[in-house]
Amino acid sequence: MRIKVINPNTTAAMTAEIDESAQKAKEPGTEVVTVNPPQGPVSIEGYYDEHVAAVQVLGEVLRERDKFDAYVIACFGDPGLEGVREITDAPAVGICQAALQLASTLAPRFSILTVIPRVTVDIHRRVEEYGFSRFLASTRTTNLAVTEFSSNRQAGEKALLEAGRKAIIEDGAEALVLGCAGMAGLDKRMEQDLGVPVIDGVAAAVKIAESLVRLGKKTSKISSYKYPEKKEFTGMEKIWQP
Amino acid sequence: MRIKVINPNTTAAMTAEIDESAQKAKEPGTEVVTVNPPQGPVSIEGYYDEHVAAVQVLGEVLRERDKFDAYVIACFGDPGLEGVREITDAPAVGICQAALQLASTLAPRFSILTVIPRVTVDIHRRVEEYGFSRFLASTRTTNLAVTEFSSNRQAGEKALLEAGRKAIIEDGAEALVLGCAGMAGLDKRMEQDLGVPVIDGVAAAVKIAESLVRLGKKTSKISSYKYPEKKEFTGMEKIWQP
Amino acid sequence: MRIKVINPNTTAAMTAEIDESAQKAKEPGTEVVTVNPPQGPVSIEGYYDEHVAAVQVLGEVLRERDKFDAYVIACFGDPGLEGVREITDAPAVGICQAALQLASTLAPRFSILTVIPRVTVDIHRRVEEYGFSRFLASTRTTNLAVTEFSSNRQAGEKALLEAGRKAIIEDGAEALVLGCAGMAGLDKRMEQDLGVPVIDGVAAAVKIAESLVRLGKKTSKISSYKYPEKKEFTGMEKIWQP
Amino acid sequence: MRIKVINPNTTAAMTAEIDESAQKAKEPGTEVVTVNPPQGPVSIEGYYDEHVAAVQVLGEVLRERDKFDAYVIACFGDPGLEGVREITDAPAVGICQAALQLASTLAPRFSILTVIPRVTVDIHRRVEEYGFSRFLASTRTTNLAVTEFSSNRQAGEKALLEAGRKAIIEDGAEALVLGCAGMAGLDKRMEQDLGVPVIDGVAAAVKIAESLVRLGKKTSKISSYKYPEKKEFTGMEKIWQP
Amino acid sequence: MRIKVINPNTTAAMTAEIDESAQKAKEPGTEVVTVNPPQGPVSIEGYYDEHVAAVQVLGEVLRERDKFDAYVIACFGDPGLEGVREITDAPAVGICQAALQLASTLAPRFSILTVIPRVTVDIHRRVEEYGFSRFLASTRTTNLAVTEFSSNRQAGEKALLEAGRKAIIEDGAEALVLGCAGMAGLDKRMEQDLGVPVIDGVAAAVKIAESLVRLGKKTSKISSYKYPEKKEFTGMEKIWQP
Amino acid sequence: MRIKVINPNTTAAMTAEIDESAQKAKEPGTEVVTVNPPQGPVSIEGYYDEHVAAVQVLGEVLRERDKFDAYVIACFGDPGLEGVREITDAPAVGICQAALQLASTLAPRFSILTVIPRVTVDIHRRVEEYGFSRFLASTRTTNLAVTEFSSNRQAGEKALLEAGRKAIIEDGAEALVLGCAGMAGLDKRMEQDLGVPVIDGVAAAVKIAESLVRLGKKTSKISSYKYPEKKEFTGMEKIWQP
Repeated sequence: MRIKVINPNTTAAMTAEIDESAQKAKEPGTEVVTVNPPQGPVSIEGYYDEHVAAVQVLGEVLRERDKFDAYVIACFGDPGLEGVREITDAPAVGICQAALQLASTLAPRFSILTVIPRVTVDIHRRVEEYGFSRFLASTRTTNLAVTEFSSNRQAGEKALLEAGRKAIIEDGAEALVLGCAGMAGLDKRMEQDLGVPVIDGVAAAVKIAESLVRLGKKTSKISSYKYPEKKEFTGMEKIWQP
Repeated sequence: MRIKVINPNTTAAMTAEIDESAQKAKEPGTEVVTVNPPQGPVSIEGYYDEHVAAVQVLGEVLRERDKFDAYVIACFGDPGLEGVREITDAPAVGICQAALQLASTLAPRFSILTVIPRVTVDIHRRVEEYGFSRFLASTRTTNLAVTEFSSNRQAGEKALLEAGRKAIIEDGAEALVLGCAGMAGLDKRMEQDLGVPVIDGVAAAVKIAESLVRLGKKTSKISSYKYPEKKEFTGMEKIWQP
Repeated sequence: MRIKVINPNTTAAMTAEIDESAQKAKEPGTEVVTVNPPQGPVSIEGYYDEHVAAVQVLGEVLRERDKFDAYVIACFGDPGLEGVREITDAPAVGICQAALQLASTLAPRFSILTVIPRVTVDIHRRVEEYGFSRFLASTRTTNLAVTEFSSNRQAGEKALLEAGRKAIIEDGAEALVLGCAGMAGLDKRMEQDLGVPVIDGVAAAVKIAESLVRLGKKTSKISSYKYPEKKEFTGMEKIWQP
Repeated sequence: MRIKVINPNTTAAMTAEIDESAQKAKEPGTEVVTVNPPQGPVSIEGYYDEHVAAVQVLGEVLRERDKFDAYVIACFGDPGLEGVREITDAPAVGICQAALQLASTLAPRFSILTVIPRVTVDIHRRVEEYGFSRFLASTRTTNLAVTEFSSNRQAGEKALLEAGRKAIIEDGAEALVLGCAGMAGLDKRMEQDLGVPVIDGVAAAVKIAESLVRLGKKTSKISSYKYPEKKEFTGMEKIWQP
Repeated sequence: MRIKVINPNTTAAMTAEIDESAQKAKEPGTEVVTVNPPQGPVSIEGYYDEHVAAVQVLGEVLRERDKFDAYVIACFGDPGLEGVREITDAPAVGICQAALQLASTLAPRFSILTVIPRVTVDIHRRVEEYGFSRFLASTRTTNLAVTEFSSNRQAGEKALLEAGRKAIIEDGAEALVLGCAGMAGLDKRMEQDLGVPVIDGVAAAVKIAESLVRLGKKTSKISSYKYPEKKEFTGMEKIWQP
Repeated sequence: MRIKVINPNTTAAMTAEIDESAQKAKEPGTEVVTVNPPQGPVSIEGYYDEHVAAVQVLGEVLRERDKFDAYVIACFGDPGLEGVREITDAPAVGICQAALQLASTLAPRFSILTVIPRVTVDIHRRVEEYGFSRFLASTRTTNLAVTEFSSNRQAGEKALLEAGRKAIIEDGAEALVLGCAGMAGLDKRMEQDLGVPVIDGVAAAVKIAESLVRLGKKTSKISSYKYPEKKEFTGMEKIWQP
């Protein structure tokens, strides 16, 4: 089984951290390839970044179509997820959706720990779309930028512990979800310190992707996620033409 | 007052129809400029199309920043709307959001008439995000492609009348919303035949945009719609760099 | 185009302020006539006040039927709105519904600033009916009565600034809605001080009303808002008989 | 214990039927007085009717304040209910709210049988406000006017049986709620024919009112239902002044 | 009329308190018999306790089938309620559902006062199932165990007053609901001190049960609450076999 | 890794089918032990059956505590799930919750195929609790009893194909969920015939359980799912005492 994990931003250091978390989570027989696109924002912290990155994610799938059994989108905004579900029938898993699913089997209320305040409303939109508003105790920001989690792991961990502690004590969170792929791998230490389950979306998504492939499941192609209609994409290269 | 109306697809014939509807709706003192991007899908009928078109919409705004008082996105999926709200403080209005707002002041239940079935789920997502699920009697498809509304106005009108009639009789719709920019301008005739208000989103969006500008309102820049964070967009031209 | 703006209470000073805000907001070609009923409460701060005022609003419409192209109800409880939509096919716009609509195009979360605590639950009911619960960050009270906003503009403004600041900092509001017609015209100064959009419902409603008239739209008469059934209104004057 | 049952319309024949149902439902020690206002619509089938009738209901309470331990509003739109809760601390019970409460203890899904289609949306609003949307299988109309249920009991019963049967078979209703005070007393026969519980709101409201009085409960006067603010009601008689 | 009130735990002292509250609430002609099962947890404070107690509640009904006109389940988790509705057509009323119903006729927002934090999420689930999420201002815990309310009435009352006061001041509660059968009978004193309605679920459930019996209503047997399917219950005594 | 799969009913033939599906789904290194309790209903088709079976499920966990890394409850009502999450910190996965999670990553709308109509409302309650109401296109019944799926696989398959086809064509389902453990293993053939993903909850739950164990996750023990409070369970054997 081959899974392509796509970091939608262009920061190679973050791709490496995501890869480490993904490799640890996978089954022995699974091959995980982690990449990032050559173009686009170095981090994703808003709608503009997300719109641009979504197209890059699509490019990563189109470039090597049919060589992977599943795709993981490793950014908590799950940019391009629905589009990927159209252009391939291999299961496509977003780290946000996967993290929320696993968290909801371990605790009836959880909080999401994220980066800067501007992304909160967009996270809530995703949480609602995936059905988990009723599980959400709160979203807590660390006020660190995405890239700061890569460049200074210790500062990131400290900020997460503080935000997590407040979520547990003040908001009633019974589990925590790491709300940024840049936080991949920080769950274990937090669990020890805080005593509640902490979900790393990258690891969660790899497991959900493996599960779907192992059970032989494919994305539904009957209506919403049909392959794109045959039509011209004016002025765009061949790989983009449906 | 200058308003830029952006048709997110590349079909010039549709841009012309959108422009006609927008010009009819505007106040005498308003200048409306209607454009479409040079690149991208000839029509938008799914997530993949939408992701690609969203970036083209952003490009249309970035290309002539500060020359317009408001922007209208003339596709019922409102692609790129949130991103546009980040890159400018001029009000950005989607034809879906605007149409739903006006419809909800005329009737407590309305139906949306749209193109092919695959877009229905995505429309429902937008309806919910904008707050109008409680007003939605149904979404009815015509089974015509977007471009067929341009190429064959008569067939389009006939299909819309039939879908609208069913929405009124079978679903309890008390008003109708045209769920595709390609249907712009078809509202008047339908109102005469069906006896209920029919909302053309292009016209609605122009009025909402004019209203916001006239009252001196700007997009909130305090959090979710702040200008994009200063960061590198790897390998992209200067206009894309925040 | 002629729009009748109805202040549902009997305080002439407030009618004058509402008129000032409406006149400023209207297009050059629009004639706005602002009135208040001869009978009823001097202000509306609860259900009892609202029930009595609703009938007065209906009277104002019945008295001069067919002389106006649209009606604006200038009280944040929108008293009588649904009834007005029955007795005329001219669009009827409530300042609450209009304010929420414009606010939701400028910010994904906003707060309503209102008068005394007892009206909060009723405001939430309206917010939910119009579909905007998901946009509501909070409702903040100033603890001033409706009439105090007319009699002491400075005190009103100060209280609003304080409530607005708390809404932004503590509740995450990204825009503010003035939750009482007595606050009409106070938006500009607040925007300067607080740096977020502030919506005056009177101005918003005038623009929505103009938009509907300009597009030739009428209230749907097919079911919920049909003209009242022909029946006797026992012991009531002729204008009240359907 | 004295309960005042108020038929909000002016049709004495309906008041008599309501009284009969209320007298049958009450405990031996309870005195029930059923009245209708001298003014207002002969039946209530829409918002306009409802706005006018609401004020008449308030008048019926104000006229004999402090002589009753509880009030029942005997129209399925519960007109004036919130206002009555302000002007007295004696419990005020609407037949819609009471019927939905009892129905929800007997079946997890029920349908409401009502008069003409135009009232459906308003009923749904009430159902949602009281919290019972999740229990609602459907609202079925009989296409009979309110007064037809008084003038022709047999035709009314037949129409209700037909609508009820459809609700059970086609909509999954497991109980039925009579959605008009004019249907009072028709529940028993329907239960025999249809084999599911049928709730008469008048009877239900009398029991809820008795229960509240018997337990010594009063309407909360701490905020939303406080007595009206002391203020002038311009040009209105003394009993209307708070 | 005979009503069986079932305390689902095995603590006789609590059964006595529940009985006292039930006897005070009932009509003269009603006979109330209050019991507790011979087996099971001494108190119910979590899902495990609840699962075990639910079966004991079923046993209490099966043991004396057809001897009672209605059943009241006197634990705020309403354990076994839906099962009881299957094994008898006599109305079955849970104290949680009944308390929420009466509270919602007296105030538009109320808080539930409960025991220890672990039960909060389960209470919210019930509140939502019964339709009252929109009325819920908050759930406040006293941090006392269920049995402490029996063993030390004074300490219980003090903790409830403190929690109730906070609910009113900080959460906007306009009425209070006692969220544990162990608190039965403590409502009167709290009402005097706090000035808002306080609902004792045991008393409320007795009144709802009497109301349903008095009106001749039975649990719907058409689908969800049909008698259990005829089938073997392996290794279980005869009374358990459907 | 050792997973205990518990069939909550006492039908050994069904336990064998469940085991077959679980063994096929598991990873090579996982040991799956499938059991059913010695006591209780031969099938679960309603609340009474479910209450009784829930306690048997708890017994199965208590009997061999600490010998398994995770538990799967193999009945679509997930009976006892929350209780199991209290009595062990090993992850507990219900086949309903797991099936809904995987289905929601493959299609935006799906239908549940179930047995007899009486279970529909209970299924909807679970769907809502887990957050998947927005994904639910419909629940379709086959009108076959649980045990008929074991005793006559061919009839079961035929009924499922027919119900599934209707769900796709009439309700807009884009994937199907097998809503009974008795249907385990029937997904593959249905996928071939119907062309949409079909989720077998037993297989799904095994994968989710494995994923949680593999990532080292435990049920949150901080509040709602804490171990049961130390207290006496009157008259019950030692294994039941917390």
